[in-house]
Amino acid sequence: MQTPWDHRYAQRMQRIKASAIRELLKLTSDPEIISFAGGLPAPDVFPIQEFQEACIKVLKNNGPQALQYGTTEGLLPLREMIARHTCRYGINVNPSNILITSGSQQALDLIGKLFINRGDRILVEAPTYLGALQAWNAYGAEYIAVPSDEDGMITDELESALRCGPKFMYILPNFQNPTGVTISLERRKRIVELADRYGVPIIEDDPYGQLRFEGENLPAVEVLDSQMRNEPGTYTGNVIYLSTFSKILAPGLRLAWVIAPEEVIQKLAVAKQGVDLHTATFTQYVACEVGQHGFFDRHVKTICQVYRQRRDVMLDVLEEHMPPGIKWTHPKGGLFLWVTLPNHMDSKQVFMEAIKEKVAFVPGEPFYPNGGGENTMRLNFSYSSPELINEGIARLGRVLQRMMQNT
Amino acid sequence: MQTPWDHRYAQRMQRIKASAIRELLKLTSDPEIISFAGGLPAPDVFPIQEFQEACIKVLKNNGPQALQYGTTEGLLPLREMIARHTCRYGINVNPSNILITSGSQQALDLIGKLFINRGDRILVEAPTYLGALQAWNAYGAEYIAVPSDEDGMITDELESALRCGPKFMYILPNFQNPTGVTISLERRKRIVELADRYGVPIIEDDPYGQLRFEGENLPAVEVLDSQMRNEPGTYTGNVIYLSTFSKILAPGLRLAWVIAPEEVIQKLAVAKQGVDLHTATFTQYVACEVGQHGFFDRHVKTICQVYRQRRDVMLDVLEEHMPPGIKWTHPKGGLFLWVTLPNHMDSKQVFMEAIKEKVAFVPGEPFYPNGGGENTMRLNFSYSSPELINEGIARLGRVLQRMMQNT
Repeated sequence: MQTPWDHRYAQRMQRIKASAIRELLKLTSDPEIISFAGGLPAPDVFPIQEFQEACIKVLKNNGPQALQYGTTEGLLPLREMIARHTCRYGINVNPSNILITSGSQQALDLIGKLFINRGDRILVEAPTYLGALQAWNAYGAEYIAVPSDEDGMITDELESALRCGPKFMYILPNFQNPTGVTISLERRKRIVELADRYGVPIIEDDPYGQLRFEGENLPAVEVLDSQMRNEPGTYTGNVIYLSTFSKILAPGLRLAWVIAPEEVIQKLAVAKQGVDLHTATFTQYVACEVGQHGFFDRHVKTICQVYRQRRDVMLDVLEEHMPPGIKWTHPKGGLFLWVTLPNHMDSKQVFMEAIKEKVAFVPGEPFYPNGGGENTMRLNFSYSSPELINEGIARLGRVLQRMMQNT
Repeated sequence: MQTPWDHRYAQRMQRIKASAIRELLKLTSDPEIISFAGGLPAPDVFPIQEFQEACIKVLKNNGPQALQYGTTEGLLPLREMIARHTCRYGINVNPSNILITSGSQQALDLIGKLFINRGDRILVEAPTYLGALQAWNAYGAEYIAVPSDEDGMITDELESALRCGPKFMYILPNFQNPTGVTISLERRKRIVELADRYGVPIIEDDPYGQLRFEGENLPAVEVLDSQMRNEPGTYTGNVIYLSTFSKILAPGLRLAWVIAPEEVIQKLAVAKQGVDLHTATFTQYVACEVGQHGFFDRHVKTICQVYRQRRDVMLDVLEEHMPPGIKWTHPKGGLFLWVTLPNHMDSKQVFMEAIKEKVAFVPGEPFYPNGGGENTMRLNFSYSSPELINEGIARLGRVLQRMMQNT
């Protein structure tokens, strides 16, 4: 249908592309497909009983407030809860350092709105989180990509990247999406040192940090930054820290938060007012109620048990079914692992063959902002049951075996 | 605190100002102040019982889905409900013409993202909805302002405005925010004719249309557009139509919708994916459940009863307490009315005096994109009880009487 809107699109829309994942996922709607493509939490662990009780309580005790307009910054008791939680990890912040956002995706969009002029260069890991690229492409960002290995960003290559004049650095230190890799302590320290030397601030995106199945928690990059400055425990403001309730509670609430210097929070709030006034009051009240009495600590343990088992199953069956020449990461937490095929293989072709065998994943190339990664793929292990992981990886193994024999 | 973020803000942030209303409202937090400043629905009419039942039912029957990630376009049953509702008003649309947004503010932001290049001129009523100006200022919009009177936009001045090359026209035909005025049928017809003649598409923002206290509903501008084209009942796509659950259910859910040609909806969805992935799944399920069995039709009647009484009280006490030389609109629905003081008076000065007398309103100037309206003010009649309206307008009358005697 021809409409007068057709020739009225803004120039920026040429830079805003539908996510490759979004388009591929449409091919995976067949219910017989075992999909490792999404990034979905396991619905089996959603605390439905607790949600019911919280909804009833919120509506009984705070109904009119919970259904009314709220402040742009977010519900104060929820920000207080997040501040207390953050202090436990060694960062002393108060509610004026916190903005509630409609999911972390909105935090990324607001950060783009606040900081990115067209042509600004952002330093990212390669591969990196696709949602950040999507949010920032709209503002005309360009990228300086630093490769990573099993210990995260390769810091030997960081200094030359910092010399290219990035506006800021964006990293996901824990169980990164897409690779599942965690940046080692040594490299974290190196990152804060080098970032400080070049005066480049850091955005630390940490949706998965609490979902650690084994080993010790590593200090947040923000914590290391304040230690380096001999101000341990103080929020120095050099690192903007993002996290979310999507992985520790439920993504369907669209609730996340930004920790930043108070002035940045105020500016983010002004920008947020223009984009959605505020995040839903009701879901904020409900999350705050569910989180009473240490619920999150208990619930994170449940989630980790389930996800650890699924990761173990996936690692075992990969070992069993993958032909030689294929490697994968061994994440200590999170939702994803990362498979690297032999150099000559194209994971998009593998995807098309895999769909025929009723198994799906996400080809890795879109996670590389400046190209590359054609022979990589992301597998999600949080969503499917161990039985389906078993069967799905067996199918994927058959596809790869056939394709590798034919070349 | 000096941080490395301070000198990194994007240029667009110079155009993104905190809302004047937002800053003024901070002065009204004293609980003794009777505030006609906000745009809040009456919390007394929130259907709390229905919400409780809906939450329990949704979590029992669809818990895992309601807490999981959802599609960017929005929950299909909710879009189907909106499509059915829209068809009753004479516009035949289907779910692929509908995008669920996180409040109408997000719809305005996404429209800005999709259509507005820096320097593009948008044709608006003067005064117009402040949230639209805030959303679009971020994209560098400029404005062509057409004045309005008690019958809405003065269409005799529309043609010269259309000749200035606006990218689109933005109107609020029913009980406009801020004036409470409704565009007459004759003027609506003139608007669609002239818009068609100059090839300028229309955005029709209709948050209040259902809240009519008296008189007959007027056809939507979209309906008149399709009639003019001899395609009555067909959604022709020349008008993008916005509405919301904020005024007929609860604003704390942040749920609204856009009706647009399918191609525009797809592009809006791609843009929305980058800004928040999707609107909260849980609130969409709950709104859909609350809306079963014709609930909205019954509930809108309740709201209208309450608001009509409050409007009547406000009109009566304005008559009683306002000094001569002051005029106000007589809205047939909605949440607001608009007061015009004598030309020499400045409503910002009145505001500062009124705060001392513990009564608040919004000065009108910010609603004029290109300046003007210094002697106007917006009064909200939906939020305060009749008793408080009585007392608050009496206070305001005293302030004005004193100020007008002193000049």
